[in-house]
Amino acid sequence: MQLSKQNLQERQEQVYDAIVIGGGAGGLSAGIYLQRYLLSSLIIDKGKARSFWMQELHNYLGLPPDTPGKVLLHQGKEHYLSVNGDLLNGYVEQVVDEGDTFAVRVKVGRQNSVYPVFRSKYLIAASGIIDHLVPLDEMRNVFEYAGYNLHVCMVCDGYEMANKQCGFFAGSEASIEDMVFSLSWFTPYITVFTHGLFAVSDEMRQKLSAYGYRLVETPIQQFLGEHHQMTGVELVDGTVVQLETGLIGMGSQYHNTYLKGIELEMKGENLVTDKMCRTSHPRIFAIGDLKVGLNQVAIAVGDGALAATQIWRDIRRAAGPRPWEENISLPV
Amino acid sequence: MQLSKQNLQERQEQVYDAIVIGGGAGGLSAGIYLQRYLLSSLIIDKGKARSFWMQELHNYLGLPPDTPGKVLLHQGKEHYLSVNGDLLNGYVEQVVDEGDTFAVRVKVGRQNSVYPVFRSKYLIAASGIIDHLVPLDEMRNVFEYAGYNLHVCMVCDGYEMANKQCGFFAGSEASIEDMVFSLSWFTPYITVFTHGLFAVSDEMRQKLSAYGYRLVETPIQQFLGEHHQMTGVELVDGTVVQLETGLIGMGSQYHNTYLKGIELEMKGENLVTDKMCRTSHPRIFAIGDLKVGLNQVAIAVGDGALAATQIWRDIRRAAGPRPWEENISLPV
Repeated sequence: MQLSKQNLQERQEQVYDAIVIGGGAGGLSAGIYLQRYLLSSLIIDKGKARSFWMQELHNYLGLPPDTPGKVLLHQGKEHYLSVNGDLLNGYVEQVVDEGDTFAVRVKVGRQNSVYPVFRSKYLIAASGIIDHLVPLDEMRNVFEYAGYNLHVCMVCDGYEMANKQCGFFAGSEASIEDMVFSLSWFTPYITVFTHGLFAVSDEMRQKLSAYGYRLVETPIQQFLGEHHQMTGVELVDGTVVQLETGLIGMGSQYHNTYLKGIELEMKGENLVTDKMCRTSHPRIFAIGDLKVGLNQVAIAVGDGALAATQIWRDIRRAAGPRPWEENISLPV
Repeated sequence: MQLSKQNLQERQEQVYDAIVIGGGAGGLSAGIYLQRYLLSSLIIDKGKARSFWMQELHNYLGLPPDTPGKVLLHQGKEHYLSVNGDLLNGYVEQVVDEGDTFAVRVKVGRQNSVYPVFRSKYLIAASGIIDHLVPLDEMRNVFEYAGYNLHVCMVCDGYEMANKQCGFFAGSEASIEDMVFSLSWFTPYITVFTHGLFAVSDEMRQKLSAYGYRLVETPIQQFLGEHHQMTGVELVDGTVVQLETGLIGMGSQYHNTYLKGIELEMKGENLVTDKMCRTSHPRIFAIGDLKVGLNQVAIAVGDGALAATQIWRDIRRAAGPRPWEENISLPV
């Protein structure tokens, strides 16, 4: 059920089989699988998963390619609640490994906040990432276009950028190296914007120039366009650069600070996992964008199935087979 | 586009970037990703993927849990065709590795068959498995219930079997060992049917007996029930065993005979793959049920994204970045 400030008490007295941190595509898939394995689960969702911002999910099998990410998330929540999962809107502040259980401290409510602590045997970290956007004085202006024709994911939306005049909004020289030359598969008409945030080496200038890509280092005043269609940018010096599409590659914020007290194997900012999405801690799983791998809704959904299945196997094997005679009720 | 006998000729003169063998959930997901990476692809579908038989997909995020597998497949085909993929109904007879390309020989049409040969740089084996059903004189009788309350996948439908009187239809003693004791997590009220197909060891008899599970070795005459709800089985001696649900665990047929001429690393009947679903052959990928792993729609869909992405990376890296000046048309 959907939990609220009013009904948290009894849930704090039980030990869940698994707590899932994050109610995006991966977390919801994990929750549905857990409940269908007759395990008890709680999904804690801070809201606004990365897919929440996607105006159209172009590459997820089974949904028409103009389906908004919000629709997927809404359907997933309904599905999870229909199999009796517990769902709480809140922000996970800290996880403490108590040995057999985890204690998960949550901030609930922006005003008059309460701080319940929930316990579980297993933990699934599914809290994902959120993209850094171009830092402007008037941020609303970026949100006007982000998720429409100002993209954050080349794999998702390269197709939509094909052969268009494209702005690449870089956060570092490394992001130029990582993205621009791959982006040219979709379109070679690339203008790189640094927004004056970092210096560009001579070597990179020459490389960009060799392929004919343009470099703009003057900070951006605002994005131009209307009806969610970005048509270019205006720089602080008044210059206007016309564009048909854009890709923001300024890095991502990883929502995993609650794990900082627990030593886990990382690769860069990503959690390292095995084939079943288990981290280096035997009772912590990581799925979706937090782990090493491709950041795609389809991958996160499959990850949820894997992590939940491995948790079920662990718990089922520890419990042993159930004899016919023993007329016990099911775990949930 | 949907190909037919009438328009095969020109397609035989090109080299596709990838041919996908199998138009189930995995193959369609791969095809959508390939096309969206601006690669050329052909999906060859023999029809009736395993998910085609699923009356309700209970655990695939984004679709209501009563969605038939057919609806997912139909939506996926529309999606694939909308991004200009080629789709052919046919049966792949043989794949020959020609070095830089594969030659894929297809039987098209059950009557007046033609045998076109298509070529591609990469191959994605997505042809899956189909479950063996209980071999009865009147097979229609099994199909009456299979996919309704006579299940083939414990992971998918264990939830629907919870605490019900369940028949387990075994194909070998190994299948009893593999499945029955896990099945008891969902329901301990298990009757194992051998249909007289194999002998059961004393050790297994004792183990089943120790948990109170029943063993029926008399062959089955027919399944009983109405409106797709199986209510029990009638044995050849006239005995009726009442049941509320059933699980068929008689093994699967792997649709991979077309690969027999190519040496690939296997684990049992499954293809071994790396994290990106690449087999031991650098240009052959395997996704979904054919490969080692969990047989789930959500996994197959994610696999399709992985395989297509790796093929795109291979081809993109070999091609190098595209300069602005070069006003070439896109690969597709």
